[in-house]
Amino acid sequence: MKVKIQLNQLIEAVQDVMKAVSSRTTIPILTGIKMEVTYDGVHLTGSDSDISIERLIPVEEGDLVHIEVKQEGSVVLPARYFSEIVKKLPNDSVEIEVGERFETTLRSGASEFSLLGLDPEEYPRLPQIEENLVFEIQSDLLKAMIRQTVFAVSTSETRPILTGVNWTLTDGVLNCIATDSHRLAERKMPIDSQSEELSFQNVVIPGKSLNELSKILDENAEKVQIVVTNNQILFKAKNILLFSRLLDGNYPDTSKLIPSESKTTFVLKTKEFLQAIDRASLLAREGRNNVVKLATLDNQTIELSSNSPEIGKVFEHMIAEEIEGEELKISFNAKYVMEALKVMDCTEISILFTGAMRPFLIQPVSDDSIRQLILPVRTY
Amino acid sequence: MKVKIQLNQLIEAVQDVMKAVSSRTTIPILTGIKMEVTYDGVHLTGSDSDISIERLIPVEEGDLVHIEVKQEGSVVLPARYFSEIVKKLPNDSVEIEVGERFETTLRSGASEFSLLGLDPEEYPRLPQIEENLVFEIQSDLLKAMIRQTVFAVSTSETRPILTGVNWTLTDGVLNCIATDSHRLAERKMPIDSQSEELSFQNVVIPGKSLNELSKILDENAEKVQIVVTNNQILFKAKNILLFSRLLDGNYPDTSKLIPSESKTTFVLKTKEFLQAIDRASLLAREGRNNVVKLATLDNQTIELSSNSPEIGKVFEHMIAEEIEGEELKISFNAKYVMEALKVMDCTEISILFTGAMRPFLIQPVSDDSIRQLILPVRTY
Repeated sequence: MKVKIQLNQLIEAVQDVMKAVSSRTTIPILTGIKMEVTYDGVHLTGSDSDISIERLIPVEEGDLVHIEVKQEGSVVLPARYFSEIVKKLPNDSVEIEVGERFETTLRSGASEFSLLGLDPEEYPRLPQIEENLVFEIQSDLLKAMIRQTVFAVSTSETRPILTGVNWTLTDGVLNCIATDSHRLAERKMPIDSQSEELSFQNVVIPGKSLNELSKILDENAEKVQIVVTNNQILFKAKNILLFSRLLDGNYPDTSKLIPSESKTTFVLKTKEFLQAIDRASLLAREGRNNVVKLATLDNQTIELSSNSPEIGKVFEHMIAEEIEGEELKISFNAKYVMEALKVMDCTEISILFTGAMRPFLIQPVSDDSIRQLILPVRTY
Repeated sequence: MKVKIQLNQLIEAVQDVMKAVSSRTTIPILTGIKMEVTYDGVHLTGSDSDISIERLIPVEEGDLVHIEVKQEGSVVLPARYFSEIVKKLPNDSVEIEVGERFETTLRSGASEFSLLGLDPEEYPRLPQIEENLVFEIQSDLLKAMIRQTVFAVSTSETRPILTGVNWTLTDGVLNCIATDSHRLAERKMPIDSQSEELSFQNVVIPGKSLNELSKILDENAEKVQIVVTNNQILFKAKNILLFSRLLDGNYPDTSKLIPSESKTTFVLKTKEFLQAIDRASLLAREGRNNVVKLATLDNQTIELSSNSPEIGKVFEHMIAEEIEGEELKISFNAKYVMEALKVMDCTEISILFTGAMRPFLIQPVSDDSIRQLILPVRTY
């Protein structure tokens, strides 16, 4: 194997595949990045066996030549060292050559590294995926869907299935749900698909995989192809493949959790409400329970308050855009409400309450494509 | 006490005094910030008993009115909560009022905080300083002197005196020296002082104090007054006082460590050399010893190399601007050389060697106001 690669291309590609490389793997070869050079370009692969990322650096794009292939071949290089080295090389390009026993030389300017590579034949194969169930989403919309749900997955391994986001596709609508049993985030999106009858359920994608996917996707309107199988999901973007295993087990039925009626409804300015909760919870953080009380007052006013006996107390008043229905006193974990508000990309939100002990729903004023359900805390 | 303060002024002042507040203090009242309101302005004090910082917010500056004093008085407020609250208040200003039992109300917009304050009489007094030994340095030069020496203090408590920077003033020249016994940083600067006969020695300032001082000083040409006493040093900048205790004990005599002759001298481009060492040490980091070998080759070339049996090896070649004297092979800890090079604010440096086993000296090409001495490592 012998190849000359433009460094900016290589640095970017290595950063992408590094997102799948874990330093704590039990399989030694997975601490490496597999590099395969063909006359198509350079293929890099990183994997922690749950997530695998393959990244192509094409030989040329438009007028730009990224790569000069001198001899095809492949090698596995120590990921952490390789990624640090490429970032610091002095020239615009690097020549990489594999010698005997996979000893690999990197030359750039007056700098010469020699790394002990490993046999690429020992690197695990990427999963073979049957492409029966395929649909597409715009890259920026997929990133938004991930951001709006993945924060709500459970971080505890007591119910592993809740560490993933549950995807279902029915009647041309993709529905993503995450819950840690204290709050639930739901995001729906219509999918334009050729085959209307495409459907699946209980596709539970590990939160970590979605976070890494979101980092390597570009914020643009290009399509990402998604292939779903029994135990794997594959995301195909430009020059990138990301494979993730799916979580085993049945995701709980969450459809009955979301209340269908409301006794009290607010319309509030999202940012103003977020900032008021942020302040109201300032004295209740760190080891405390983050609990903030909310009460309706006269004149469309809501009051947020909290009280920490050793430190002090805080009152926030806020004029709602609208308040309808019964008076209300309710307590909640400020962290959950703030995290939900932060992903609502709308200036005004509705909050629907069905009583102080029942979960309440936060959603955009004029649609229900995003719904955030939060369990109250018993204090009033 | 009752006062209205512009928030931007308060936030900045609180950030400054917070640098002296430690969360791990054994004296409970020092987890607070003392606030004293007089018709001069608002005085804030933070202290961990080693360092104390007092910050004044003046009533007005130029045309700007920062403060409306309604009633003089003082209180001690919980530092961490107070500093988080002021950063998040909704209005441009905050009204602070102390009520019974030091319960303190902060009002800003529709936000009202009530904090349990403490009795300011219980807050330790700042040290009384006799102003016999006083001199001045420009703020930006003082920051540079700190940056160029403090990184070399010891982080180990086995010889506490080495955790400080040793300041001496003789013949109108301030000399600052830091060493952790593996390397030594020295910075000299002439002081324009009225009293030529001003002198002191063995004034050892804790590295931590100098780091905090550097953070709160502005990068400008305003003068900082420095007052030295037996066991305290006081820095007076605009609206700021920083008191630091001095370290007890005698700083070792370092004057004989610096070689007066050299057998091999290089002149090198600082940045190019720094980057080459950075790369040459990439395979020798983390648990390894950071050791890089340097050897002179023919044609004004120097070679940097390192070898990590399990990972690989690296060679860097670099054309020196000048090489004079004997051939040389020497090994050193790359971290020490890189840290020294990073504070050399000059494009070219000289390195003076007196043999592979003797300390070598890095300094600017045309002056010796900064000298960085580094002990080699035995490998060749």
